[in-house]
Amino acid sequence: MQNTVTSELAQKYRSVRNHSVKICEPLEIEDYVVQPVVDVSPPKWHLGHTTWFFETFILIPNLPDYKVFDEQYNFVFNSYYETVGARVIRTDRGNLSRPSVSDVYCYREYVDGKMEEFLESDLIDKSIEDLMNLGLNHEQQHQELLLTDIKYILGHNPLFPPYHKGSFHENLNKKSVETVRFPEGIYEIGFEGEGFCFDNELGRHKVYLNHFEIEKDPVTNEEYLEFMKAGGYEDFRFWHAEGWDWVKENRAKSPLYWHFIDGEWFNYTLEGLKRIDLNEPVCHVNFFEASAFAAWKGMRLPTEAEWEVASEKINWGKRWEWTNSAYLPYPGFKKEAGAVGEYNGKFMVNQMVLRGASEATPKGHSRKTYRNFFPTNLQWQFMGIRLAK
Amino acid sequence: MQNTVTSELAQKYRSVRNHSVKICEPLEIEDYVVQPVVDVSPPKWHLGHTTWFFETFILIPNLPDYKVFDEQYNFVFNSYYETVGARVIRTDRGNLSRPSVSDVYCYREYVDGKMEEFLESDLIDKSIEDLMNLGLNHEQQHQELLLTDIKYILGHNPLFPPYHKGSFHENLNKKSVETVRFPEGIYEIGFEGEGFCFDNELGRHKVYLNHFEIEKDPVTNEEYLEFMKAGGYEDFRFWHAEGWDWVKENRAKSPLYWHFIDGEWFNYTLEGLKRIDLNEPVCHVNFFEASAFAAWKGMRLPTEAEWEVASEKINWGKRWEWTNSAYLPYPGFKKEAGAVGEYNGKFMVNQMVLRGASEATPKGHSRKTYRNFFPTNLQWQFMGIRLAK
Amino acid sequence: MQNTVTSELAQKYRSVRNHSVKICEPLEIEDYVVQPVVDVSPPKWHLGHTTWFFETFILIPNLPDYKVFDEQYNFVFNSYYETVGARVIRTDRGNLSRPSVSDVYCYREYVDGKMEEFLESDLIDKSIEDLMNLGLNHEQQHQELLLTDIKYILGHNPLFPPYHKGSFHENLNKKSVETVRFPEGIYEIGFEGEGFCFDNELGRHKVYLNHFEIEKDPVTNEEYLEFMKAGGYEDFRFWHAEGWDWVKENRAKSPLYWHFIDGEWFNYTLEGLKRIDLNEPVCHVNFFEASAFAAWKGMRLPTEAEWEVASEKINWGKRWEWTNSAYLPYPGFKKEAGAVGEYNGKFMVNQMVLRGASEATPKGHSRKTYRNFFPTNLQWQFMGIRLAK
Amino acid sequence: MQNTVTSELAQKYRSVRNHSVKICEPLEIEDYVVQPVVDVSPPKWHLGHTTWFFETFILIPNLPDYKVFDEQYNFVFNSYYETVGARVIRTDRGNLSRPSVSDVYCYREYVDGKMEEFLESDLIDKSIEDLMNLGLNHEQQHQELLLTDIKYILGHNPLFPPYHKGSFHENLNKKSVETVRFPEGIYEIGFEGEGFCFDNELGRHKVYLNHFEIEKDPVTNEEYLEFMKAGGYEDFRFWHAEGWDWVKENRAKSPLYWHFIDGEWFNYTLEGLKRIDLNEPVCHVNFFEASAFAAWKGMRLPTEAEWEVASEKINWGKRWEWTNSAYLPYPGFKKEAGAVGEYNGKFMVNQMVLRGASEATPKGHSRKTYRNFFPTNLQWQFMGIRLAK
Repeated sequence: MQNTVTSELAQKYRSVRNHSVKICEPLEIEDYVVQPVVDVSPPKWHLGHTTWFFETFILIPNLPDYKVFDEQYNFVFNSYYETVGARVIRTDRGNLSRPSVSDVYCYREYVDGKMEEFLESDLIDKSIEDLMNLGLNHEQQHQELLLTDIKYILGHNPLFPPYHKGSFHENLNKKSVETVRFPEGIYEIGFEGEGFCFDNELGRHKVYLNHFEIEKDPVTNEEYLEFMKAGGYEDFRFWHAEGWDWVKENRAKSPLYWHFIDGEWFNYTLEGLKRIDLNEPVCHVNFFEASAFAAWKGMRLPTEAEWEVASEKINWGKRWEWTNSAYLPYPGFKKEAGAVGEYNGKFMVNQMVLRGASEATPKGHSRKTYRNFFPTNLQWQFMGIRLAK
Repeated sequence: MQNTVTSELAQKYRSVRNHSVKICEPLEIEDYVVQPVVDVSPPKWHLGHTTWFFETFILIPNLPDYKVFDEQYNFVFNSYYETVGARVIRTDRGNLSRPSVSDVYCYREYVDGKMEEFLESDLIDKSIEDLMNLGLNHEQQHQELLLTDIKYILGHNPLFPPYHKGSFHENLNKKSVETVRFPEGIYEIGFEGEGFCFDNELGRHKVYLNHFEIEKDPVTNEEYLEFMKAGGYEDFRFWHAEGWDWVKENRAKSPLYWHFIDGEWFNYTLEGLKRIDLNEPVCHVNFFEASAFAAWKGMRLPTEAEWEVASEKINWGKRWEWTNSAYLPYPGFKKEAGAVGEYNGKFMVNQMVLRGASEATPKGHSRKTYRNFFPTNLQWQFMGIRLAK
Repeated sequence: MQNTVTSELAQKYRSVRNHSVKICEPLEIEDYVVQPVVDVSPPKWHLGHTTWFFETFILIPNLPDYKVFDEQYNFVFNSYYETVGARVIRTDRGNLSRPSVSDVYCYREYVDGKMEEFLESDLIDKSIEDLMNLGLNHEQQHQELLLTDIKYILGHNPLFPPYHKGSFHENLNKKSVETVRFPEGIYEIGFEGEGFCFDNELGRHKVYLNHFEIEKDPVTNEEYLEFMKAGGYEDFRFWHAEGWDWVKENRAKSPLYWHFIDGEWFNYTLEGLKRIDLNEPVCHVNFFEASAFAAWKGMRLPTEAEWEVASEKINWGKRWEWTNSAYLPYPGFKKEAGAVGEYNGKFMVNQMVLRGASEATPKGHSRKTYRNFFPTNLQWQFMGIRLAK
Repeated sequence: MQNTVTSELAQKYRSVRNHSVKICEPLEIEDYVVQPVVDVSPPKWHLGHTTWFFETFILIPNLPDYKVFDEQYNFVFNSYYETVGARVIRTDRGNLSRPSVSDVYCYREYVDGKMEEFLESDLIDKSIEDLMNLGLNHEQQHQELLLTDIKYILGHNPLFPPYHKGSFHENLNKKSVETVRFPEGIYEIGFEGEGFCFDNELGRHKVYLNHFEIEKDPVTNEEYLEFMKAGGYEDFRFWHAEGWDWVKENRAKSPLYWHFIDGEWFNYTLEGLKRIDLNEPVCHVNFFEASAFAAWKGMRLPTEAEWEVASEKINWGKRWEWTNSAYLPYPGFKKEAGAVGEYNGKFMVNQMVLRGASEATPKGHSRKTYRNFFPTNLQWQFMGIRLAK
């Protein structure tokens, strides 16, 4: 493989890897360790797991005489790859005080050193380059998870410590009232062209869509507050049966991180506890809440096909946007062989697709064909709502 | 409304209502009472609930001076209608020894008498006729549930009592190896024409399908046994992640009702415990099992659109067939106002569509546009598998 | 063995066995089947289990050529005897519609017939007589359980059906305010003399007691209502830590079966729902409630030794009375070998002793040395409170 | 109060407080944070909670103008004192990354500084001295908990990091085969004399004991291994019913921390993973295991009265020894008023008494009248077995 390709790859490798470390800079050592709920992984686990990915899938099979950093780390840092052997059960991640944070940083340095060595070698072919790109995109996904998990850890601490000043500081304009219309007909969706994409985006194909309209901007806190004030969380008619069970069981009455203090709504942000900003797109709502809000408005969530078709005419990128499409394979989808085949396909059931990207998504890691997905009850990602009809 | 319409309606009413009673004829009184798992309702509850439907939605609002049979029954026999008030929690249905079976039959007779009176009156307009048809189709759905629940109750008793001789006795031919092919293009799906359908079938619309092939016959026990013998339940690669968790948690190794006795596979049927019939379509598999079987075969489950398009060229009607389509609204779907609007819409999340009908489906209650749906882990319906690619 | 002994035994056998049937006379068939909570067994299970006891421990080992009624019944009707083989798990008892009630009565008749045959034979020696007495006392224990379980089944039905008129109908006098005093010193407790007792009562032994006083009568509903009105269920200071958790988790605010209707307290009795009788001894309180009440009164529960020493000077027999003694072996206690050794010893942990007897205890089945025992959270027995200091 | 008393108190204060810090010296910061199971608290929580005790019960009510270190800490570091207000739920202790370890040490220094100031004042009367002694003994109890919890945290880490070299390093002699006999008669138990004791030891009183024998030394690993090899964990006859459920549910087959590696038994010790030392007293068994071992030996556990009577003639101090006495109040026990009254009394139900002390007990914190207590299923304390008959 040509030098320019590998040197670009090496540069990209360094840049992505450094960004993970940078995200963790404001943390105390203690913040790296805890797992307050099963979905939230300790930051040091993210740092170790993304490193393990390169060690396991690149270095061990490809770098001659590579010596594994610590035989036990496969057990500690494997996430869900059945192919790769036994692993710490997910709920136990927050019970492990060791490896220490400093051990994990040593692990990163060791693997990064070996990767530099490997990237300078002439051992890299197209299939390894693809795997490298998968590893880097994988790490970028975990960078977003790092931010969401850090927010959860600090935002659920009774002391509400801020993450750092100036996170996502921006002037937001008022939401536009505009909608965009699309006529009935055949459209195409799915990835095409050069560059990286995940396997679940492949298989560009035709879909037939009825006429639809979609709002140019996502739903704001102001609009969502109206729903809350109108009794949205007390009226079963807007909710799926399963959503209504969720409301009652969790006594839900607002998005995650919202607190009603002395007659006013605050929310925990990465800068600390703040009064709600009415102009901001609503954040940290789950699929049930997004659907109930839409039902209350007499509208609906878009399908993922509608969203993708409309993507160039709407403003997106601040919130992952719930669609009313279940996460299912595109026509002709095939799982790859081996552990990498476990990346996406096995999750294609009982989850809903989110489209777009959020302010926590790393730069360069978003595409209009990107298919994010989460179970319907989770709120902890930077998730919002866009309306269609 | 014309006499002929109402007399036809009255005849249909009698015929459907009698069929429920007929299904229960072989039961002992004790069989009417128990609820071995939350999904299985006691037969007497089905008999009461279907009666409550007519009392609540037809008689109370429409028959002047109608006197409710027992004020408490609304609490006992409401299933999930939030609009209609408080109800016995679902898990408690099997804890109620009263109303007794004989009370429930009195309730049926009382309501049937009043319904006859009502059907002879001139009070029936189109909207009432529609509601009547909904009530009758609702009762037919519960007739299938009655059979599946009776099978569960008797089939999980250590004495394996037969339901009755001659249930579903038929000569089955060997499965055909034929497949049917359909070219890429625009197709239409959804209900059209006269007659009854549920609201979830409405909104006939165009879909764009890629080229596909579909097997003429559903998968047999013989084929499924091969999957089992090949280690299908021990190899995570064929399973969704959630399906694999289900396998491990339940130590699943066969469809529901199968027992390995002295080196041979038997299954509980409505006629009692019998050696597996290799020619029969496999039954009582959940979505995870259906998907894993298809993956093992190198094929896949059809989508519901593919199934409907192919429906006139394939043999169906013995098993509900899992599709790989999530249960979601058709374009333009609108929930009706009031309690009837709770019938379908609020369940459109985290379930998969089944198409076809089963040998337990009442005659006259199946259509190619019928959308049945269940959560992915349930096996207790008469569910089978059809392959596509 | 002498004829008179066996004919007395036969007479006692008939009388005890008939009493179980008599208790069930007012039931509908449906009432025999259900198990609303794990502690409550279906009445038909009690009828089968007590019969199984005689079949398993008397007839099978001792009556030549005895033919087991149904090989499956050992699985269905064994309660907890590990020695005797596999059994239906306890929570599943209410899921079994078969054997039917009529099957169970046939089983009783079959075993009773064989027992008559056996009792007329000359096969009975002292050890069999002892086992017979154990079996009869075992059945008497289940007669009390039958009543408590029937009360639970009917009392938790939304229709509140009465069991039968005239159950426990008596004129109750006002509670006496008298207490009885005992000086410090050595006393003896434990069974002595002729007649039947359980192994846990054996080993009469000396205990050293400090001076104590004990109330002549158990606590009444009137006194307990004062505790409730004084906020007893809202003040953690009166409760054990575990008891306070129980209060909060169950939102407890009264004894079992009490209902606050239109500003007044009612309770479900075997005659149906009735206004609270202020003179009656309070019933259906658990150990936590009994202790909290005593703490609120500035008094305490007696120990079982104190109770036994005082037993001839106090009025007892209407309620099982919670003591503050844990259920532990008397000095020198030895488990018997074999299945019969599983009767008592293995339960001697994490339960508290109750002394006395209740109105549901069969005549002739109470003694001042009788040691009843239950976990601290259960209310469903006929349990009350006596105070000491 | 005299200077000598307060200066002794100050010296004791310093010495006890320093010992807690010393115990934590070998820890990494990460080890201070985690809570792998609900019973194990994070070390930093112990350090904060013991400090909170002095702040809440000594400084706030008694030191004029005392300024609370951080108002939020009452919420974070209260353990179970209902009297003192809301608190972090126990299962959440391990989810809190803040206050950081360094914050907690600042808290200790602040409170210690104020305590020195207070101890030099003339504000200390007898009741404050008593409270001080309670606080110091409370901290000593938490020092033992610190060690048991640290052992759990490190011993359940897949890397098995040692705590530190030389922990509890001692030469152990072989167990003596001697037993000590005591004749039937009246004995006295309970605390008497000068010095500190807990309220649950008060009320010295007479007990009547039957003749008994007790072994001079606790049961060794060698003896316990024989029990394991003889199938002790597979034979229900040795176990309480509840104990047998515990065995099956947890698939128990050895004490906590034991691992069977390549055909040999190892256990995790504070010095790391080591081959079992056969001469050591068995450790980390729960009440069920202790009882089952005794039953297998044809012996029994002593009562707490027997233990106390024998205490001067037996070797104790390496293991907390399970007795067969339930944790109940001594005759005449009275809870103190206020929060301090919550210390012991409210736990007197469903726990068993342990007597003695362990190698993890701080020097000067053991007495023959000391009543330790734990629920029957817990193994994580340094618990062993002594036999009696």
